[in-house]
Amino acid sequence: MDDFIQQRHQPPTKLAVPRELVVVCPPMRSNINVSRIARAAGCCGVRRMICCGTARLLAKIARDSREAIELEVHRTLLPVLARLRAEGYQLVGLEQTSLSESLFTFPFRRRTALVVGNERTGIEPEVLKALDRAVEIPIYGRPDSHNVATATAIALYEYCRQYPSG
Amino acid sequence: MDDFIQQRHQPPTKLAVPRELVVVCPPMRSNINVSRIARAAGCCGVRRMICCGTARLLAKIARDSREAIELEVHRTLLPVLARLRAEGYQLVGLEQTSLSESLFTFPFRRRTALVVGNERTGIEPEVLKALDRAVEIPIYGRPDSHNVATATAIALYEYCRQYPSG
Repeated sequence: MDDFIQQRHQPPTKLAVPRELVVVCPPMRSNINVSRIARAAGCCGVRRMICCGTARLLAKIARDSREAIELEVHRTLLPVLARLRAEGYQLVGLEQTSLSESLFTFPFRRRTALVVGNERTGIEPEVLKALDRAVEIPIYGRPDSHNVATATAIALYEYCRQYPSG
Repeated sequence: MDDFIQQRHQPPTKLAVPRELVVVCPPMRSNINVSRIARAAGCCGVRRMICCGTARLLAKIARDSREAIELEVHRTLLPVLARLRAEGYQLVGLEQTSLSESLFTFPFRRRTALVVGNERTGIEPEVLKALDRAVEIPIYGRPDSHNVATATAIALYEYCRQYPSG
């Protein structure tokens, strides 16, 4: 077999249309996680991320996503979620709930706002009430949940798998 | 619609057969990344992880994966990879290379050793030579690659999606 030659820093895969995917974060404990989410979102071609409170992107972690992504910081999420819904976004929470669907089989709509939860407390009840759907990543062992930034990256991957060209 | 009620710490999804997936790490710069990989692997039901050098799992990050995963630490990877191949594992590198296949369409074999790369230098040439296949995660924007632990979690997710019951 031919040799595998490392080929880093390739030009990114082109999207036929811009990603209609928005990442929405509640107030988070750690800007490390916010920044990790931004890096993964940047890699997925996401251009809009909505955060709360004191969110800010750390250069060493978020890297070039700081230029690629428009970060909106709000005081609370509910008014933003109402606005996103009015703009036609399906509000999909990433959370283990009584009604969550498996990410393995969940059909994303192109126009999706992916709502993630706080590291410690997850998605708070009043935000859960505002959601259209909830998805969860099947867990097979211990620990019983992924880190929030890891889970978000996995959900973003699944969205991209379903919409490989935007 | 009914309300979404948070349901954390659910019992894990049962596997019909144990995961035949091994995660293989070269010497890494950061035990934070090794520990993040272990956490994601634990969530995916992986029970065996092979590391090099000074790898160790940090409790705060790796959590219960420390008990769920058998961690083997070796000095170098090549003899381990030869042994894994003899045990019937397909050696799949997670790296951007001239011959990498898209993770979106890559059919994993059940018995897979997922080989990841160092944070800075990726998979070194002599390890690349030992691989059967290489996969890469399509990247759509900036930055031009995922963090190694994030990328590993995504690849583990894709494997689990293909083998939802082991």
